Amino acid sequence: MDWLGGVVLAVVAAIGGGTIRDLLIDGDVFWVSDEWPLVVSLVTAAIAIIVLRARPSVDPRRASWYVASDAVGLGAFSVVGTSIALDAGTSYFIAAFMGVVTGVGGGVLRDVFARRTPIVFVGEIYAVAGLIGVLAHLSLVEVNAGDVATLWIPLAVVVAVRAAAVRWSWRLPRLTRG
Amino acid sequence: MDWLGGVVLAVVAAIGGGTIRDLLIDGDVFWVSDEWPLVVSLVTAAIAIIVLRARPSVDPRRASWYVASDAVGLGAFSVVGTSIALDAGTSYFIAAFMGVVTGVGGGVLRDVFARRTPIVFVGEIYAVAGLIGVLAHLSLVEVNAGDVATLWIPLAVVVAVRAAAVRWSWRLPRLTRG
Amino acid sequence: MDWLGGVVLAVVAAIGGGTIRDLLIDGDVFWVSDEWPLVVSLVTAAIAIIVLRARPSVDPRRASWYVASDAVGLGAFSVVGTSIALDAGTSYFIAAFMGVVTGVGGGVLRDVFARRTPIVFVGEIYAVAGLIGVLAHLSLVEVNAGDVATLWIPLAVVVAVRAAAVRWSWRLPRLTRG
Repeated sequence: MDWLGGVVLAVVAAIGGGTIRDLLIDGDVFWVSDEWPLVVSLVTAAIAIIVLRARPSVDPRRASWYVASDAVGLGAFSVVGTSIALDAGTSYFIAAFMGVVTGVGGGVLRDVFARRTPIVFVGEIYAVAGLIGVLAHLSLVEVNAGDVATLWIPLAVVVAVRAAAVRWSWRLPRLTRG
Repeated sequence: MDWLGGVVLAVVAAIGGGTIRDLLIDGDVFWVSDEWPLVVSLVTAAIAIIVLRARPSVDPRRASWYVASDAVGLGAFSVVGTSIALDAGTSYFIAAFMGVVTGVGGGVLRDVFARRTPIVFVGEIYAVAGLIGVLAHLSLVEVNAGDVATLWIPLAVVVAVRAAAVRWSWRLPRLTRG
Repeated sequence: MDWLGGVVLAVVAAIGGGTIRDLLIDGDVFWVSDEWPLVVSLVTAAIAIIVLRARPSVDPRRASWYVASDAVGLGAFSVVGTSIALDAGTSYFIAAFMGVVTGVGGGVLRDVFARRTPIVFVGEIYAVAGLIGVLAHLSLVEVNAGDVATLWIPLAVVVAVRAAAVRWSWRLPRLTRG
């Protein structure tokens, strides 16, 4: 894997879930008309790779800062994705589905391109954490809880579920065969 | 592979082909405005996984009920996919292509996510069976054969071709190198 | 890999990049309303496979005619993809991105389906060659250089960069871990 591949995969992880969501909803992809998400994810990816190359002995996927920032991203993307789907007029059911797709889709695409088995398939409480956050978000929307609460409470719920899942090694039951 | 991953892959296999077709034709994905296909595929996948977990010694992909229901799905999806493309105003050629994509696309996506080589690439008479059904469908549409005949005859053709291919181990010639 | 899989992968490589570009821009996929690109890529793929099967001792990916025609395809697809994005009203930045996606996307999709690591990720000067051509194209568009120059000069640049990269084994620096 060269550095360009690393940047491409990081950008895919960042904008891939929202891209799938937008293609499924109405085809109006958020970063095509407004280029800032793409610029920010490119610059962030480049900085991350420079920093990581300077510290090659750290496996980033086990570092606590990585798990923490990944959990924040999962929560934010899931909640915002749900909200965008609702604004586009979908039902609560489809909006919840789109929220989870937004939250986990980028990571799944990245892992498919990098030929890894996506984390969402291997027993971690990951998509489930996103789904719990999405359900919290929809509940708060239903009771008109206000913009601040409907965003931040579900985000905190996702981070808490992910933290607990990692801390106590919660895992989903495995199927007998893959 | 955990049970959630199993459900996700089953849903991808069920609605993936039609989703690709709809994105290619006009971007109006069938299960976004009408959520029943997604609900039915989720519930069916969950039931299938519960049943299969109770009988772990069976490899479902070799069981005759699996091959049979898969052939019915291939036939139905290929024919309906062709019909939807025709209704959207495509040429016969593009409609046939969309029919095959609808029939085999979900399985290809599932296999890519699960990191298996898609069945359509490894020599089985599979996409070809779908294509034969699609050509039968277009022929019957051309002669105004009536809704019942244009749906059921091609479906029976696909199932018959698949049954014969499995029974007599018909395979496509392999390329010298992969 | 059977011959049908070979044809499918060749078609995916040929029209996949433009398909991704069109889905991202406005969902109006170029080969759905106009079937000639699909017909031509199917026929070309079938002929290529017949020819290659007659000469099984040649690994096509190392042959100079393959590398040369692939470089021409990369250049033409990158430049035309950029041009189509500009015509659709995107910014220069998004147009450059779409150009590279058009140039390399088909090959990436093909490699994902065939379960190979995409060439764009493994250190070759490939997407970078496309990007250099795209930047040349945008510079020539900016100075109103005329249709012939804005197409052919960037195409020659891409081919020259690829030729030099292959000749002198230029490679991108690798990340420490994949």
